[in-house]
Amino acid sequence: MNLLLIEPAECDTDGRVRLTGPRAAHIRGVLGAVVGQSLRVGLLDGALGTGTVVATSDDAVTLSCAFEPSPPPKARVDVLLALPRPKVLRRLWAQLAALGVGQILLTNAERVERNYFDAHVLLPATYRPLLVEGLQQARDTHLPEVSVHRQFKVLVEDHLDALCAPGRRLLAQPGAPLSIEDAIEPGCADRVLLAIGPEGGWNAFEVRLLEHHGFVAVGIGGRTLRTDTACIALITRVHGRTGQA
Amino acid sequence: MNLLLIEPAECDTDGRVRLTGPRAAHIRGVLGAVVGQSLRVGLLDGALGTGTVVATSDDAVTLSCAFEPSPPPKARVDVLLALPRPKVLRRLWAQLAALGVGQILLTNAERVERNYFDAHVLLPATYRPLLVEGLQQARDTHLPEVSVHRQFKVLVEDHLDALCAPGRRLLAQPGAPLSIEDAIEPGCADRVLLAIGPEGGWNAFEVRLLEHHGFVAVGIGGRTLRTDTACIALITRVHGRTGQA
Repeated sequence: MNLLLIEPAECDTDGRVRLTGPRAAHIRGVLGAVVGQSLRVGLLDGALGTGTVVATSDDAVTLSCAFEPSPPPKARVDVLLALPRPKVLRRLWAQLAALGVGQILLTNAERVERNYFDAHVLLPATYRPLLVEGLQQARDTHLPEVSVHRQFKVLVEDHLDALCAPGRRLLAQPGAPLSIEDAIEPGCADRVLLAIGPEGGWNAFEVRLLEHHGFVAVGIGGRTLRTDTACIALITRVHGRTGQA
Repeated sequence: MNLLLIEPAECDTDGRVRLTGPRAAHIRGVLGAVVGQSLRVGLLDGALGTGTVVATSDDAVTLSCAFEPSPPPKARVDVLLALPRPKVLRRLWAQLAALGVGQILLTNAERVERNYFDAHVLLPATYRPLLVEGLQQARDTHLPEVSVHRQFKVLVEDHLDALCAPGRRLLAQPGAPLSIEDAIEPGCADRVLLAIGPEGGWNAFEVRLLEHHGFVAVGIGGRTLRTDTACIALITRVHGRTGQA
């Protein structure tokens, strides 16, 4: 844990926070913090800052926090991801948050198995702690927004423009002749919405629909990567061009 | 499985291969292959090609293979990796092979726990099938070379020059002002050796020793990523500049 994230409601108006449970145990046990010691803290979806331990007890730690005037910049990459297998998605949550993404739109596609939508990993109670874990790893405060869409066509045709701020739309296709580096100029300040297909890829209809709605096919070489590897590689390659993260 | 890898010893001089075991079961069960059907095949550390099913039985599949005249290009990135936790390394093997790396040098460091060296994931019998799985995913034939080094200083001072062909040496440091994109010009044809530290980072002595041996500190932003996420991100960012993979 490289950052201790605090829910805004846990913090009173003068920056005092009383923590119990796993975070208190972590501060006392793993970090071995004593009164007077400072920790890196952050307000969820808010600013980074410093928390000074002002009291400890067997089950609680009280911090006095001072926050920076403004939150860190938000990630400018969003991901439209064909719902992966639950085991893969479970691994991905923390990694996506750690890399920095604004929105995670999970969608159906022909090659997505229907029962994936019933998985526990789609419950906020499951994924929120994993997203927070990723933010604490990477020292970010911005929780990605997550939405789940069971109808791909309805999502792309009717909701995408409202859900996503205008920007570049890229469609990851193994072996596409255009690379991410060709598609995004260095220092590009636009938001990027990156569509990543299921194992086996989008079908021809899905590709046409995405292209019809402004998505440009891009690749990162001829290799077909597993969804989780591909997500990390694609997101970081976009960050490499936008100069973020 | 996007490619069926065959050991050279399994293939007779006229390109006939008789497969039993999991690969035969996969061809018959998952791919549903029948006589006359063609599959993408590759010779381990050799050429890609096409295998035509010429016979099937309850426990075997016989292919007649034709290979391309030359193997696919080898990856030009090598990784010097502080030995990660066994659980993380187990996940990484296939991903490293899929992304494309030439050599994987696993090393000790102050912040590597000694018992990691006793883990099963360091046995060729464990990791070789995982590397092959990654190659089959990404349609590559080149098995990364793996070596394990218990003495960091001896490795860097005495063995690294002999083990690794000359090229760029980069040291991944979260928050380093120089980015991979600054350090490697587009289309760079050099080999790149990328040093990736343990959780908690290299210590000051290790950083100095690496820098003394030609490693330049580079970052991919201010985020501290988990070892597995960092490996994928760093390798693909290098590929993005060298134009490989």
